Amino acid sequence: MKLLSIPEINEVWSTLKINESGLIPAITIDFKTNQVLMQAWMNKEAFEKTLSTGFGTYFSRSRNKLWVKGEESGNSQSLIELRIDCDKDTVLLVVDQKGNACHTGSHTCFDENLIWSKNG
Amino acid sequence: MKLLSIPEINEVWSTLKINESGLIPAITIDFKTNQVLMQAWMNKEAFEKTLSTGFGTYFSRSRNKLWVKGEESGNSQSLIELRIDCDKDTVLLVVDQKGNACHTGSHTCFDENLIWSKNG
Repeated sequence: MKLLSIPEINEVWSTLKINESGLIPAITIDFKTNQVLMQAWMNKEAFEKTLSTGFGTYFSRSRNKLWVKGEESGNSQSLIELRIDCDKDTVLLVVDQKGNACHTGSHTCFDENLIWSKNG
Repeated sequence: MKLLSIPEINEVWSTLKINESGLIPAITIDFKTNQVLMQAWMNKEAFEKTLSTGFGTYFSRSRNKLWVKGEESGNSQSLIELRIDCDKDTVLLVVDQKGNACHTGSHTCFDENLIWSKNG
């Protein structure tokens, strides 16, 4: 499917519930394994850029700026699917992740801190 | 593994980055398929209850109260694993979901709103 146009993207954005800072949480998963790679935030610009370029783009709250994933590390995310939840307050990105998603070098941001497991 | 004690849970909670409302985002996935079932929020009480009872428990922002998933619908979530991300600002619950996770009757909260797909 071809990428969406800016007016089409803006129409979708206008239906979303954003927080008081103009942001919406985004969950990013691996298209092959369904593994959750990371959780980040999007502002309108990040949402627009993700859907108009086909690459995962976020808003960095710590650096207070747009953040094209992999821009520095090379570990970019080619978009396979974008979904919205039933409440329209969360975005799900299904991506083809180049290299590792986590800046620590782990494949996902959830690999290192297991707090509890039923199986010990 | 046996469930954690309240002091053990409080120790983990104290390391987490919560937002200005005292909440942290929680992503819940199916332990068999890795599918993202839902995204919700936890306050300290929800985090404590999830780890001390072994059932997915959240804080409902719309109802402004603790919300034991499935309390009314029966669609409870038995905890298999709980993980924290590298930034300690997101919780990942791996659960055995009874029935459907979404109040719409869909299996996941992301089933119904596909915004874009590479494969058309």
